[in-house]
Amino acid sequence: MHKIGIVGAGIAGLHLALYLQQRGVDATIITDRTPEELAKGRLLNTVAHHHTTLAREEALGVNHWPDPNQHYYYHDHWLNIPGSPLNFSGRFSKPSRAVDYRIYLPALMEDFTDRGGVIEYGRIEEDDIAALVDRFDLLVVSTGKGPLGAIFSHDPDESPFQQPQRRLSVGLYSGVRHTDPMNVTLSLSPGAGELIVIPTITFDGVGTALLMENVPGGPLEQTVTTKYDDGPAAFRQTVLEGLEQYHPAVYDRIDTTRFDLCQPNDLLQGGLVPTVRKTSVEFDNGKFAIALGDVHVTVDPVNGQGANIASYAAFVMGEEIMKAPSLDRRFVEHVDMARNDRCLGAARWSNLMMAPPSEEMQMLLGAMSQNKALCDEFTENFNWPERQWDNLSSPTRIRSWIERSAPARAAE
Amino acid sequence: MHKIGIVGAGIAGLHLALYLQQRGVDATIITDRTPEELAKGRLLNTVAHHHTTLAREEALGVNHWPDPNQHYYYHDHWLNIPGSPLNFSGRFSKPSRAVDYRIYLPALMEDFTDRGGVIEYGRIEEDDIAALVDRFDLLVVSTGKGPLGAIFSHDPDESPFQQPQRRLSVGLYSGVRHTDPMNVTLSLSPGAGELIVIPTITFDGVGTALLMENVPGGPLEQTVTTKYDDGPAAFRQTVLEGLEQYHPAVYDRIDTTRFDLCQPNDLLQGGLVPTVRKTSVEFDNGKFAIALGDVHVTVDPVNGQGANIASYAAFVMGEEIMKAPSLDRRFVEHVDMARNDRCLGAARWSNLMMAPPSEEMQMLLGAMSQNKALCDEFTENFNWPERQWDNLSSPTRIRSWIERSAPARAAE
Repeated sequence: MHKIGIVGAGIAGLHLALYLQQRGVDATIITDRTPEELAKGRLLNTVAHHHTTLAREEALGVNHWPDPNQHYYYHDHWLNIPGSPLNFSGRFSKPSRAVDYRIYLPALMEDFTDRGGVIEYGRIEEDDIAALVDRFDLLVVSTGKGPLGAIFSHDPDESPFQQPQRRLSVGLYSGVRHTDPMNVTLSLSPGAGELIVIPTITFDGVGTALLMENVPGGPLEQTVTTKYDDGPAAFRQTVLEGLEQYHPAVYDRIDTTRFDLCQPNDLLQGGLVPTVRKTSVEFDNGKFAIALGDVHVTVDPVNGQGANIASYAAFVMGEEIMKAPSLDRRFVEHVDMARNDRCLGAARWSNLMMAPPSEEMQMLLGAMSQNKALCDEFTENFNWPERQWDNLSSPTRIRSWIERSAPARAAE
Repeated sequence: MHKIGIVGAGIAGLHLALYLQQRGVDATIITDRTPEELAKGRLLNTVAHHHTTLAREEALGVNHWPDPNQHYYYHDHWLNIPGSPLNFSGRFSKPSRAVDYRIYLPALMEDFTDRGGVIEYGRIEEDDIAALVDRFDLLVVSTGKGPLGAIFSHDPDESPFQQPQRRLSVGLYSGVRHTDPMNVTLSLSPGAGELIVIPTITFDGVGTALLMENVPGGPLEQTVTTKYDDGPAAFRQTVLEGLEQYHPAVYDRIDTTRFDLCQPNDLLQGGLVPTVRKTSVEFDNGKFAIALGDVHVTVDPVNGQGANIASYAAFVMGEEIMKAPSLDRRFVEHVDMARNDRCLGAARWSNLMMAPPSEEMQMLLGAMSQNKALCDEFTENFNWPERQWDNLSSPTRIRSWIERSAPARAAE
């Protein structure tokens, strides 16, 4: 029986650990933060789980948030083109749902330990690696922190950027009206950036995540550089002024008298470099470490793909562990064959969104505003990023998708 | 509608052309040899089609050789270890069949043209390429001959050899008794090489292909260097003496008074370097050429994989052409994702057979001689080389396979 060491307790590590636990495989999680520390800590991210991920949670018996009133059902798009704004929506075949990870991760850690799983707490230092390699048949590395996160080299073919492409200001807010039924709102302002509004289950009911994806050097950068702790009123004012000017449809949903972070530590400001890394390292004794989740593929959050592909990859890896006679080079190859198209599809599509929209992307947005079926397909494909990439990977493919999707014209 | 140019009329090009023709796609074959030239020419190869390939022939409506008496049903293995020879056999789940390609290829070319397909005859020169790129939406290159065969660069990761690993003496012979039911006999003589005996449908009933895979510098090299045309009797004598000493079980089936090439041009002597090539080239105008069959993966014939993976890859490519909105980089990626595991599995497994057997491979041969189910699985996997590679890709995996396959021991 394989003995698996999983370093990191994010969604990737937890979904894999729970998957293996269900099947009686010896899996140990090693992480540096307890559930209590996570729950009390700063906002970790803003993450939506699409229905393919919810189905995996069902399979693991960890879907603790089944209330349909707390789910969201469609994407509402606002294209803030001066003079000719566009608004159109696309529906998912099944709802999505977002939970604050300070609730989500501790809940799954508790599920794992309640079922007899072992989580070891502590930081891994360089000197610890040899003993870990010795102890397990496979090291799954699902956190970029520490010396193990650094052993996977960049894949230059899939990593076009050296710098963050957006400056992120990400917070959980009160005072933003929910739609009925709830949606995720995607507000795009050329030159300023994107705003993704996500109804999110928090410690205090359903709040609102505002994920501001600001163009570096653009007019909304102050939402990243202004510190809440230096003066909450000034911070709120900066965000509100930015929203009013560049994301007016979202601003219209705000009760300015109640608008604030849910808690002072519900804010993240910064940026990340979208990066794909080589997936494995072979140690001298022939054992392997394999990357899972963000360590493998770090995407900009604009398309909400990171957690979903991490969960997908965790299941793929679990399946391959169950099948593999040996956790070796061929095992890694099987994992990569099974996960890479979706994971890389998500990365490439997210990278594409970082560039100013091509003529064809503009045509697509225009076509979606006129063609509900096309917009529904685009929306549903947040579950299937490899299919999105089939349609978006070249200008010719985008044109072809628009043409295929054109409704048959009625005789005039 | 895509317009496909297929350069080369081997099994890869023909199976793809027939597949596309069935689906109404415009596919043109370009080749330098007419059916009549092929039929009159020198032996092309010795090739067995396993049942997965026969199923594809059924699907194409080109299985013209359905007589079960002309098929073969199992592999018979002879391990000529001095002092302790081993003999054991493994059965296929469904029979295999070999046809002289001077019959096979012309028959399929006729099928294609009878059904309205166009075959253009002529050599392609460097100067012709631009016009071909212009004329078609995709160039499928399924012959290594000519300037198009040379545009695909080596894949060094999958091409470990710079030299042929065997010196081949390949002929169609009369005077070799068939077994009943027929089999393919694999005779291994450490230091001398392998002999594969294939009952083959010829112009004159079922003859016998002797595929001698001789170790360079080994005792059977003379079967490669002795020329039939310099003296048929001396050539026959050389072959017979070699068989008697190194492949005695096959020699025992020979009626030496009748033993001869079926026709003087039924002999090939030489060697090939197992090679994997990059699969595509993008031209300046954004169109692609994609490699199919031997041009993509050239395997040593020891495992009889080349034609079978070429046919498999042709079907994969056909399916992807039907699905692709654009025959571009993403199309190539889809083709490679779908075909590579099987094609590379065949290449790696064949390459493994070129090396002196490891301790584990010797254990496996011993285990197969004692365990019919294990030997049947090994034999059936000639249809599924990727599964063979799952079991053979490391010493640990070979041991694990032997252990998993060990019959449960009865209580003693």
